[in-house]
Amino acid sequence: MDLKQELKKRADFFNQQLEKFLKNGQPDTLYNAARHLPLAGGKRLRPCLAMISCEVVKGDITRVIPLSIALELIHNFTLVHDDIMDKSKLRRNLPAVHMKYGEPTAIIAGDLLFTKAFEAIHGTQDDLSIFKNVEYGLIDCIREICEGQQLDMEFEQRQIISEDEYIEMILKKTAVFFMYAAEAGAILGGGNKEQTQALNEYGKNLGLAFQIHDDYLDMHSDEKTLGKDIGNDIRNGKKTLIAVHSLNNSQGDDKKTIKEIFGNKKATEQQIKQIYSLFNTTGSIEYAKKTADKYCNKAKEQLEIFPDSDAKQILLQLAEYSIKREK
Amino acid sequence: MDLKQELKKRADFFNQQLEKFLKNGQPDTLYNAARHLPLAGGKRLRPCLAMISCEVVKGDITRVIPLSIALELIHNFTLVHDDIMDKSKLRRNLPAVHMKYGEPTAIIAGDLLFTKAFEAIHGTQDDLSIFKNVEYGLIDCIREICEGQQLDMEFEQRQIISEDEYIEMILKKTAVFFMYAAEAGAILGGGNKEQTQALNEYGKNLGLAFQIHDDYLDMHSDEKTLGKDIGNDIRNGKKTLIAVHSLNNSQGDDKKTIKEIFGNKKATEQQIKQIYSLFNTTGSIEYAKKTADKYCNKAKEQLEIFPDSDAKQILLQLAEYSIKREK
Repeated sequence: MDLKQELKKRADFFNQQLEKFLKNGQPDTLYNAARHLPLAGGKRLRPCLAMISCEVVKGDITRVIPLSIALELIHNFTLVHDDIMDKSKLRRNLPAVHMKYGEPTAIIAGDLLFTKAFEAIHGTQDDLSIFKNVEYGLIDCIREICEGQQLDMEFEQRQIISEDEYIEMILKKTAVFFMYAAEAGAILGGGNKEQTQALNEYGKNLGLAFQIHDDYLDMHSDEKTLGKDIGNDIRNGKKTLIAVHSLNNSQGDDKKTIKEIFGNKKATEQQIKQIYSLFNTTGSIEYAKKTADKYCNKAKEQLEIFPDSDAKQILLQLAEYSIKREK
Repeated sequence: MDLKQELKKRADFFNQQLEKFLKNGQPDTLYNAARHLPLAGGKRLRPCLAMISCEVVKGDITRVIPLSIALELIHNFTLVHDDIMDKSKLRRNLPAVHMKYGEPTAIIAGDLLFTKAFEAIHGTQDDLSIFKNVEYGLIDCIREICEGQQLDMEFEQRQIISEDEYIEMILKKTAVFFMYAAEAGAILGGGNKEQTQALNEYGKNLGLAFQIHDDYLDMHSDEKTLGKDIGNDIRNGKKTLIAVHSLNNSQGDDKKTIKEIFGNKKATEQQIKQIYSLFNTTGSIEYAKKTADKYCNKAKEQLEIFPDSDAKQILLQLAEYSIKREK
């Protein structure tokens, strides 16, 4: 079984449904701005996760299409607004929505995607009380994503963040959405309580592993090829697990050096290299790798209750992929 | 019966419920930013409209509290985002959210209010299929508000707008929300189809009358006291009904003058006065007043099917108020 091929098969099916759903509308400019990002591709990880969770409990994946569309639209709405906040210029190798359509239209386009996500989930054909619960879960999730995004911004301004605080932030910003996608997919697939709970835990640990591996990937490069991103993250004081661990575990002069340089917008190339080297000295890069491994294993353990199936194999490989991918 | 007192009674009751619902949360800054505007008061027109529509069909107003909270939060979310787009500095005599908390937090605070509105409407205790329909109506409404806001921005860049286009824009931007508030209030109050349809039409016409009277109020001042707002609206090329009518009904040199000056950011005080005088020459200020009157009468006609009651009297007076208020 080839993970990429299995994901692509589902993403292709999903893309057809998304295109059917996200039709053009009036005013043109607003709908073009709203469609810009969601129709530009992407891995469709969240929709795939909902579909495969539905499959692992032997459900019919057509039942999770409305949910899957809602998940992808919410994900895209957060990206459109985040790019404005972060002043990011590119996304998926295209100009960010606000770069192409201006900030005011980008703000409304994000709001429209938010609205369309709820329109999508209303297409759920299930029992009304199931619909209401699943939709409430989505609302709860978006609230946590808002809180997580705010925490992420605030952490950049604070020097010392505990590891628990860091985990809470990425849990809200990233992992709760994976958790919800997996759980809701299983609920709509007709899974029982034990199964939906296991998939909730799977999604949560998968999301944590993904995010921490992201931090690791950004830092894990040869000193000579230290990229622009590493420099920017260090200059902006971005609180990755590596930075948090290093700040909390360095001592004496090392700690002083990190405190001085980390978050300094004017740090030189030489200083960036110095910090990178200290991240290694404190074992923080290795620590992040081990932590991602830990969450990957926790995710896989949750799947033990399911009998073997293609869907189960895909979920197992997806957990592996979360800590092995190189981009 | 005193309209203001009747509205205040309901607004006070509503405010207690809103404060209970919109509790503080973490991170503090985000919740403070989200609570800043909704807890700063305001007329609570949309919640009041939902409550009184419920009363006019003999419903129990406690049943529309979740809906009313959702209406007010959606209204406030659009204000928070609009103020960012329009670079407005003040709102309800307080600094706009983005002025006090910065743009990134204001964008998320708006998103959080959007989310909390859906959380609120989930408190509806009605039959699930009624809940689902009422909630879908809210989603549809927000989509139209997004479209209306975009149209409003685009119209500022276009010279000629037809009256129909103008009405479509204010219908989406303002009136659909009044329409929805009145209709949904009646549905949750147990109104029959004829009643809910009449209240839908009442809300729509009330909203149109309100918006056009707003345009009229802004322009209807003595030439000597022509305020800053009039100048700004003319310089920004804001497409009010007065401007639309005047551009479409002036001729020859007058038309040329309006086209040259209207929307010119550098227009002098003298030129502003000239435009104001032309708006009078084309009868456009008087036309806007008559149009608002027309919608007010249409709103009142819709109430004929209801037997007399305090609630009906309030709705009749509210329609009158929409075209008589002076601020």
